[in-house]
Amino acid sequence: MNWNGVIHKYRHYLPFADDVQIVTLNEGNTPLIKADRLAELIAPKANLQLYLKYEGLNPTGSFKDRGMTAAMTQAVHEGANGVICASTGNTAASAAAYAARAGLRCLVLVPEGKIALGKLAASLAYGAEVLSIDGSFDDGLDMVREIVKRQPIVLVNSINPWRIEGQKTGSFEIVDQLDGRSPDWHCLPVGNAGNITAYWMGYKQYDKGRPRILGGQASGSAPIVTGKIVAHPETIATAIRIGNPARWRQALEALDESGGIITAVSDDDILASWKLLAKTEGIFVEPASATGVAALKQQIEMGAIDPNGKTAVCVLTGHGLKDPETAVNQTAPPRTLPATIEALEKHLTGG
Amino acid sequence: MNWNGVIHKYRHYLPFADDVQIVTLNEGNTPLIKADRLAELIAPKANLQLYLKYEGLNPTGSFKDRGMTAAMTQAVHEGANGVICASTGNTAASAAAYAARAGLRCLVLVPEGKIALGKLAASLAYGAEVLSIDGSFDDGLDMVREIVKRQPIVLVNSINPWRIEGQKTGSFEIVDQLDGRSPDWHCLPVGNAGNITAYWMGYKQYDKGRPRILGGQASGSAPIVTGKIVAHPETIATAIRIGNPARWRQALEALDESGGIITAVSDDDILASWKLLAKTEGIFVEPASATGVAALKQQIEMGAIDPNGKTAVCVLTGHGLKDPETAVNQTAPPRTLPATIEALEKHLTGG
Repeated sequence: MNWNGVIHKYRHYLPFADDVQIVTLNEGNTPLIKADRLAELIAPKANLQLYLKYEGLNPTGSFKDRGMTAAMTQAVHEGANGVICASTGNTAASAAAYAARAGLRCLVLVPEGKIALGKLAASLAYGAEVLSIDGSFDDGLDMVREIVKRQPIVLVNSINPWRIEGQKTGSFEIVDQLDGRSPDWHCLPVGNAGNITAYWMGYKQYDKGRPRILGGQASGSAPIVTGKIVAHPETIATAIRIGNPARWRQALEALDESGGIITAVSDDDILASWKLLAKTEGIFVEPASATGVAALKQQIEMGAIDPNGKTAVCVLTGHGLKDPETAVNQTAPPRTLPATIEALEKHLTGG
Repeated sequence: MNWNGVIHKYRHYLPFADDVQIVTLNEGNTPLIKADRLAELIAPKANLQLYLKYEGLNPTGSFKDRGMTAAMTQAVHEGANGVICASTGNTAASAAAYAARAGLRCLVLVPEGKIALGKLAASLAYGAEVLSIDGSFDDGLDMVREIVKRQPIVLVNSINPWRIEGQKTGSFEIVDQLDGRSPDWHCLPVGNAGNITAYWMGYKQYDKGRPRILGGQASGSAPIVTGKIVAHPETIATAIRIGNPARWRQALEALDESGGIITAVSDDDILASWKLLAKTEGIFVEPASATGVAALKQQIEMGAIDPNGKTAVCVLTGHGLKDPETAVNQTAPPRTLPATIEALEKHLTGG
């Protein structure tokens, strides 16, 4: 039996009209990977049941595809000819892919010089009109909000409610993969706050238990933690480099209703968790994706979260291949070797 | 119910001892995507049922993970401390990831300057010892074959039979996703020929129908098509830039037994199919992955394959994020725009 994407799977929970033509790339159905070695490192002898929800294995390499299938399906249903979004890169790639699949024009606004190579490359390959603006993500989002008032083009940022509808299927899947129960803690990076909003909505609607939500923001881009808009957000985690989250209020609701925590982690801590994921578990993510793990590690160390016997799911939002340059910069370069067996044997034996 | 990887799913078809500890990243379970628009372009009005098996959505972004879970599981079972492979990049990343997951040392030999950025970045991130040799993939494979005779380290290239055992699960999955039948045509790129060997073995073992196999090689690297070793293979499809395939004989057997076809396609044709996949279906692959589609298109145009009412599966072996540089080089750069609503409106309306 083929998996036909999140709308097909969870149609009953989504408010689509009966006659929509689903635009899908068979997104979702991503692995929930048990991470015993990592659990032991961040919570020694605590019997922490740690799972990694590897959303980087969606078709465009990030969690955005869950919401984009919904937004694009609805856009086509409403007769749209084109879509537009502002993006730090992941939304751009996802919008571009689903627009291509649907045969729609796609415009994406990205902050100049602040988008990871893989995301840019993908958006271009999918045939989107990539517009590099001399401003931030937040500036781009302002422009997009305004243009859709003036022109017949559909906004597909996560302020589009269909994005949240599709995105909430991530919670359904986690519950299904845990055989019908929710985790104790659900940990994730928080940028524009669409994802935290959607997951919480999903858990509530699916009604099979509710986790507490742990949101991580990068220290240099932590408006929700500090309670203040950040005019010039800075972090190596480019996917969450957002100073004025569109879903700020809903993020606070999710935190409040779930008895959750929002915290800031430094770029160094994000990179440390990024390395742990790759070297300990063999899971390569873009830097922002490590923020949930870094936040969990921090809160356990601080004593704010008791890991004993608990189940935690960390959402890994994007694949490491999205940002190969950071990986190359954060690791030692390859060693060059003559193509001889002697050279190889000497390297291997440490001779 | 959680998906726990290809060994867990297809254990009954794999010759593992009862007490192996499975090393898995929950690989497999990749989407089989219906591609109606692409089908209409390459075979107009033929009612071709075209499916794309998106193997780029495995954990390390390529099909190699299916075989690597098996090779690494067996290596750990046999008490290995380390593994080694030669690679054009995808095998390296997969070996590095599964070795990290298993806690083993991992050496990978890659041809200097001939490995795509994403693959290099991933291998480094996973913590492998990446050795860049001044020789080709074929030179590297010779070195690896020799070193494992001298030193206690396990070879995990596809000449390791466990790689083929794991890889054959790709066929099982396609049959399962097609509700228990095999396609008429199974189309894929052919480099070192491990994949064609494994798929054919899988279809035969699963015994629910047999497709004809269509193998595509790049014109500049087509030893099986020409019947001659290629000393200096050249192609933009770096993943199949291999002049002396290790599984040459088995590839010929698969072609012969299935009534298949092996053909060469030019780099231009590969890139044309690569663009079609991204712009028509929203599926971004590394260039080599488009070779199966290019070969199918070519054979239909030549009249060698009758597409009418047939079912064809093209295997897309690796994600486009593996090779972002080719994507950037093959597309127009982003347009730079002032961050003003006026500039955006002017662009949108073509003013």
